[in-house]
Amino acid sequence: MIKAGIIGATGYAGGELVRILLGHKEVEIKWYGSKSYIDQKYASVYGNMFQLVEDICKADNIEELASQVDVIFTATPQGFLAGILTEEILSKVKIVDLSADYRIKDVKKYEEWYGISHQSPQFIEEAVYGLVELNREEIKKARLIANPGCYPTCSTLAIYPLLKAGLIDTKSIIIDAKSGTSGAGRGAKVDTLFCEVNENIKAYGVASHRHTPEIEDQLGYAANEEILINFTPHLVPMNRGILVTAYANLLTKEDGTIPSYEEIKKVYDSFYENEKFVRVLDADVCPQTKWVEGSNFADVNFKIDTRTKRIVMMGAIDNVVKGAAGQAVQNMNLMFGFPETMGLELVPMFP
Amino acid sequence: MIKAGIIGATGYAGGELVRILLGHKEVEIKWYGSKSYIDQKYASVYGNMFQLVEDICKADNIEELASQVDVIFTATPQGFLAGILTEEILSKVKIVDLSADYRIKDVKKYEEWYGISHQSPQFIEEAVYGLVELNREEIKKARLIANPGCYPTCSTLAIYPLLKAGLIDTKSIIIDAKSGTSGAGRGAKVDTLFCEVNENIKAYGVASHRHTPEIEDQLGYAANEEILINFTPHLVPMNRGILVTAYANLLTKEDGTIPSYEEIKKVYDSFYENEKFVRVLDADVCPQTKWVEGSNFADVNFKIDTRTKRIVMMGAIDNVVKGAAGQAVQNMNLMFGFPETMGLELVPMFP
Amino acid sequence: MIKAGIIGATGYAGGELVRILLGHKEVEIKWYGSKSYIDQKYASVYGNMFQLVEDICKADNIEELASQVDVIFTATPQGFLAGILTEEILSKVKIVDLSADYRIKDVKKYEEWYGISHQSPQFIEEAVYGLVELNREEIKKARLIANPGCYPTCSTLAIYPLLKAGLIDTKSIIIDAKSGTSGAGRGAKVDTLFCEVNENIKAYGVASHRHTPEIEDQLGYAANEEILINFTPHLVPMNRGILVTAYANLLTKEDGTIPSYEEIKKVYDSFYENEKFVRVLDADVCPQTKWVEGSNFADVNFKIDTRTKRIVMMGAIDNVVKGAAGQAVQNMNLMFGFPETMGLELVPMFP
Amino acid sequence: MIKAGIIGATGYAGGELVRILLGHKEVEIKWYGSKSYIDQKYASVYGNMFQLVEDICKADNIEELASQVDVIFTATPQGFLAGILTEEILSKVKIVDLSADYRIKDVKKYEEWYGISHQSPQFIEEAVYGLVELNREEIKKARLIANPGCYPTCSTLAIYPLLKAGLIDTKSIIIDAKSGTSGAGRGAKVDTLFCEVNENIKAYGVASHRHTPEIEDQLGYAANEEILINFTPHLVPMNRGILVTAYANLLTKEDGTIPSYEEIKKVYDSFYENEKFVRVLDADVCPQTKWVEGSNFADVNFKIDTRTKRIVMMGAIDNVVKGAAGQAVQNMNLMFGFPETMGLELVPMFP
Repeated sequence: MIKAGIIGATGYAGGELVRILLGHKEVEIKWYGSKSYIDQKYASVYGNMFQLVEDICKADNIEELASQVDVIFTATPQGFLAGILTEEILSKVKIVDLSADYRIKDVKKYEEWYGISHQSPQFIEEAVYGLVELNREEIKKARLIANPGCYPTCSTLAIYPLLKAGLIDTKSIIIDAKSGTSGAGRGAKVDTLFCEVNENIKAYGVASHRHTPEIEDQLGYAANEEILINFTPHLVPMNRGILVTAYANLLTKEDGTIPSYEEIKKVYDSFYENEKFVRVLDADVCPQTKWVEGSNFADVNFKIDTRTKRIVMMGAIDNVVKGAAGQAVQNMNLMFGFPETMGLELVPMFP
Repeated sequence: MIKAGIIGATGYAGGELVRILLGHKEVEIKWYGSKSYIDQKYASVYGNMFQLVEDICKADNIEELASQVDVIFTATPQGFLAGILTEEILSKVKIVDLSADYRIKDVKKYEEWYGISHQSPQFIEEAVYGLVELNREEIKKARLIANPGCYPTCSTLAIYPLLKAGLIDTKSIIIDAKSGTSGAGRGAKVDTLFCEVNENIKAYGVASHRHTPEIEDQLGYAANEEILINFTPHLVPMNRGILVTAYANLLTKEDGTIPSYEEIKKVYDSFYENEKFVRVLDADVCPQTKWVEGSNFADVNFKIDTRTKRIVMMGAIDNVVKGAAGQAVQNMNLMFGFPETMGLELVPMFP
Repeated sequence: MIKAGIIGATGYAGGELVRILLGHKEVEIKWYGSKSYIDQKYASVYGNMFQLVEDICKADNIEELASQVDVIFTATPQGFLAGILTEEILSKVKIVDLSADYRIKDVKKYEEWYGISHQSPQFIEEAVYGLVELNREEIKKARLIANPGCYPTCSTLAIYPLLKAGLIDTKSIIIDAKSGTSGAGRGAKVDTLFCEVNENIKAYGVASHRHTPEIEDQLGYAANEEILINFTPHLVPMNRGILVTAYANLLTKEDGTIPSYEEIKKVYDSFYENEKFVRVLDADVCPQTKWVEGSNFADVNFKIDTRTKRIVMMGAIDNVVKGAAGQAVQNMNLMFGFPETMGLELVPMFP
Repeated sequence: MIKAGIIGATGYAGGELVRILLGHKEVEIKWYGSKSYIDQKYASVYGNMFQLVEDICKADNIEELASQVDVIFTATPQGFLAGILTEEILSKVKIVDLSADYRIKDVKKYEEWYGISHQSPQFIEEAVYGLVELNREEIKKARLIANPGCYPTCSTLAIYPLLKAGLIDTKSIIIDAKSGTSGAGRGAKVDTLFCEVNENIKAYGVASHRHTPEIEDQLGYAANEEILINFTPHLVPMNRGILVTAYANLLTKEDGTIPSYEEIKKVYDSFYENEKFVRVLDADVCPQTKWVEGSNFADVNFKIDTRTKRIVMMGAIDNVVKGAAGQAVQNMNLMFGFPETMGLELVPMFP
C-alpha cells in the first residue's frame, strides 16, 4: 500500500485521479491539493464523492507533501511543477506530472510554444514520457514521468505503428482532432459555458495548438526524422472523449502498389499485440468515443482510400482517463511494480 | 463463482448488467440472450465490449438456460417472463426479473395498468420486491425477485422514511420525476431519436404511467394504508439519470407547528443509517443526477417550505444502475450470500 | 420607424432582443449597451451578428440614451434600473425593463426576496406588469413596463384561467418548473460550465426562488385572494426552453363531481380565444419546449387525474423569447401602436 | 403569389421548407406530401406547426400536384424523383429536387456511388446544380434544380475560391467534415437514437460517402481538371450544423514563398463580394456552427500554416437551411424572379 498526493485535485483530471485511485487496492490518497478550494471539504467540490472522501482540500506545499507520500500527481497549469521542483523533492518521492512541463525534450521548443520560460530544465532529460505503450521499460525505472497530453496520446497511438513500419509519407501527416469539453478544464470561462458549447462545434488553436510539438516529437521518434504535421483540434458538445482522424499518403511499394488492408492490419496488430489498453478494431469499424468512455482504452483503426492512395487513421480515447488520469495511474503502477492494469479494469460505460 | 445468464442482454439494462458483472469477482456470464441480434457477436452490438466479451448472442431458451446457470436476469418486455415461467425452472435457478411482471401483488391492478393478462399469477405472491433497503431479509431467501422499476426505486427511497414516520399527509403526495432517455430503451422509435430529444423537455404518461401503482404499493406499505399519488414523468435530454422531486403536506404537531429540519433529517439519517447505497445529503444540497452517474447510489434530501408547510423530497439515481442493473446485482448478491456491495463499488463518474 | 436602445445588449436576453428587432420593420437599434464589452464590436461578442450589426458596444449612460431613442430595453441585473431611473428620463422615453425591479407591487416583498433595497419605489405603482394576455390595455398606455420573468410568464399562463374560473383549490398549487441553461445568463460561473450541466439535472432555489412572489402576485389577481405556492425550478441540459408542470386540487361541484375535460378545455379556449401567442393544445398532447423554440408562443395544456381529483397544468415557452425578449417586443408593439405580432412572426424551429 | 407543393414534407428538410415558406410573402404551400403520415394533420407530425398549418398530409401524386402548383420541392430519398419525372410534369411546373438524383452529370458515377440505376438520365443535362453562388444565371432560367447536398455546399463554398485562383495543389485536398444529427433524417434507426449519439462522436462512411463525387465535381469545375479528394464525415451530438475543416498544400510562388494572409483574404473577399449569404470572417476567427444556426448563411475562413505550407479552410452552415431547405428557397426565388433573399432574412439564433 502506497500513499499518494494530488496537487490540483479539484480540476477535472484531478477529480478523475480520485475516482480511479479510490478503486485501486494498493493506493491511499493522503493529500487533496487545491488552489481554489483550500480548507473546503473535497466532497463539497465534487458532490459525487460524498461519503467516499472525507478529506479537506489543502494548499500546495510540495516539500511537506514529498515527505508524507510515495507518489505525487501534479494536475496543475503549465509551469507550476517546473517552478518548484528540486532534486531534494525528487529524492524523496516519485512524481507523475500531468502538465506539459517535461514532455518536450527541446527546452526552446517548449518555451516557444508555451510562451513561458522553463524554470527547471535540468530535469527534462531525466523525465520519461509516460506513454506506456512506447516507453514501458524506462517508465519502470523513472522518478519523474511526463504524463502525455490527451491529443498526443490519441494521435500517437493511432499513427505511430505505420510511421515505425515506414508505410506512410512522413511529410503528409494531417491530424484533425475532436475533443469533449472537459479538456478545457473547470475554470469559469464564457467560452465553455453550457450555452456556448451545446449545439455547436468549432475548430480552435488552428496551426498553433500547444500539443503540436509534442505530437511531432513522438512521431519523430517513430520515423527517425523530424516530423511536421498539421494539427487541428475541435471543441465538441460532449463531456468526455477525444477522436482523432489522421490522414497520410501511403508510400507505394516498388511494384507501384500501396499496402493492402491485411498488410496494414498486421502492422497494427503486431505493434499492439501485448497491449491491454489499445484495441485495434475489426475491419470497417470506426472508433466511437462512447465506446471507451470512463475506461483506459484507446481504440484505433484505419481505412485505406485506394482512389487517393491515402490512409485514414482513427483513434478514440477518454481524454480524462487514457488522456490524463488513467494513463497517470498506469505509469504509477509500473513505477511501483504493481500490475499495469491495477485499478484500471474500468469497463467502458454505454450509453 | 456462480454462473449467470441474461435474457435481454442487448437492451440498455442488459448491457449495464454485463458492464457490472464483468467486474464482479464471483460471477461469470454464460449466456447473452437477445431477440434481435441472435448469432451476432455481443461486442458487435455494444462496441464498448470489444475484446471484453467474445460471446455470441443466443435466442431465448429459458429451459436450457436454467440448467446451465445459477441465476437468470430477465431484462425483457412486460409479460415475457410471466409467459414462460414454470415451477420447474424456478426449482433449478434463481431469477431476478427486471420487468414489472411480479412487482404488483394485485394481479388485477397489474392487468389494468399494463393492459395484458398475467400468464403466471401463481408466482406473484412468492416473488419478493427487490428494493433491498426495504426487504433485505426476504430477498436473501428468495428464488424470484421482482426488481423494482427505475421511477419507483427513486421515488420510494425519497419518500418512504417520512411516510413510515407518519410525518406527511398521505393524501397529498405529488411526484414530479425526470428521466434520461435510456429509460425509453434501445428500440428504434422516432420519439427517441437524437433530434427529437435533444434541446427539448416534455412530460409524458401524465396521470397514466405504469409505474404509478408500483410506487403507490410501496408507499402504501410505509403508511399502512392505501395511497394514491400524482406521478408525472418527464423526458430529459441526457442518457442516464432519474431525478424525483416529490411534494407533500407536513402534518402539524399538536402544538400547531410542523417538524423542524433537524427532526426530519434525523428520520432520514436513522432510516438509512446502515445503508451503503443511500446517501442523505447535507442541508440545502440538492441531489444531482450526475453525482450518482454510473454508480449504485441513491442520493436523497429534502427542503421544508415553512410558508406552505409542505416538504419537497428529492432523490437522484442512475436509472440504469440503481434503477435497474445495479439493483439487480445487489439483489443477486444477497440471494447468493455475497457481500451486498460486491461488484457495486462503482465510484460515480464526473463529469 | 422608432429608435431603440438596449442596456445589457450582450447578455442572452439582450442578444435575443437584437435578433428579434433586426427583423422588426418599425424599429432601428441605435444603442448597444454593455458593461463588459465597452468599445468592442457587438458582432465580435456575438459572432452570429457578423455583417448584420456593425455597431460598437457602449457604456451605460441612460440620460444620453434617453435623449436619442424612443424606447429603452433594460436587460440588466436586479436593482440597476431602480438605481438610475428618474422622472426626467421617463418623460423622454418609454422603458421596457426586463429585470424584476418593478414587477412586484409590494416593495417590502421585493426587498425581502431580492435582498436589496429598492432605490426608486415611486415608480412601482405606475409600472405595468407586461404580461400582455392579462394587461393589454394598460400596457398600451404605459411609460414603464415591468417585463415578466420567464418562470412567471409560463406559470401564470398555464394556471391563470382555472384560478380565474374558480375551478381549483387556491391553497393547493404546486409548480414544478424546468429551464434551459440560458436562463442562468452569460456570466462565467463554474455551475453553468458545459461539463457541469450536460448529462445532469438538479433542482435549485427550492422554496426560495425569487420568482415565487411574482407568480403568487399574478395568481393572486386571478383568484382575488392571496396565494401561496410551492415553486421548484430545475436546471435542464438544453439552451432554451421552460416547461412548467403545475398541480392543483380540482374543486368538486355541488354534486360531488369534478369538472370534465370539456368544461376545462372550454375555460382555456375562451380565455385564450383571441390570443395569437398562446396555443391551447389538443387533448392528451403534452407541451414540448422544442415546439416553441425561437418563437413567442406559449403552449399550454392540462390533464385531469380522476383518481386523485387533481389537475396537471402544463406550459412551455422559449425562456429567451416569450420569457424575455419576445415579450418585451410584444409590449413595445402595444406601447407604440404597432400590430402586436409585428416582428414576432417567428415560426418555431424544429429540430 | 405562387403555389408550392412539397413531396417529403415530414422529413427534417421538408419541415424546414415549411418553416421558411411560412415566412415567405410570395409563396403559399398547397400540398404537404408524406409517405409515412398520409391523412394525418401535418401539425400532429410537427407540433411546432400547431395553429400555423391546418393541412393534412397527402400521398405522393406528382401528376396531380404538377397541375396545382407552380413549384414542387422534392425532399425525398435518392431515386424517387428520377423514377417519376416526365417531360409533361416539367412542362407544367418547376422543380427543386433536394435529393441527389440530378446533381452528378456523369450518370455512371451516380449509379456507382448510389448503387441504384438512374431512371431518367435524360434530364441530367438540363438540371442546374443549385449552388447559387456559382450558378446564379443558369438557375434563373432553369426548370429543374438539383439542390446541392449539405456537405458539398459547405465544402465547395470553403474551397472553391482558392482552387479557382490556382493557389492550392489540386491533388492535396482533404476534407474533414462534422455534421449534426438531423442530416441522418427522421427515420427510426438505432444508430441515431438519442443515447447512441449523445456524448459521442465518430467518423462514418470513411472513403465511401456519397457526397464525395458531388464535391469532386464542383471542385473540378473550379480547377478545370479532375479532382480527387479525401472526404470524412463525422456525426456530432447536436441537431443542426455542418463544419468543414479542409486541408490543402499551398502552391509556392516563383520566388519560393507561399501566398500571404492578405493575398488569400483578398481572393475570398473578391469571390464573395456580392454574396449576401456567404460571410468571410475576420482574421483568426474560426467559424462556429451555432453562429449560423437557423439561417441561410455560410461562414468561411482560413488559416495558413507557414510551417507546413498548408492552408486550413473552414466553413460552417446550418445543414437544414443553407444545406437543404434555405438553399432550395434561394433557388426558387431566382427561378421566379423574386429577390434572392426573400423569406431568407433569418437572423442566426444564439444560444
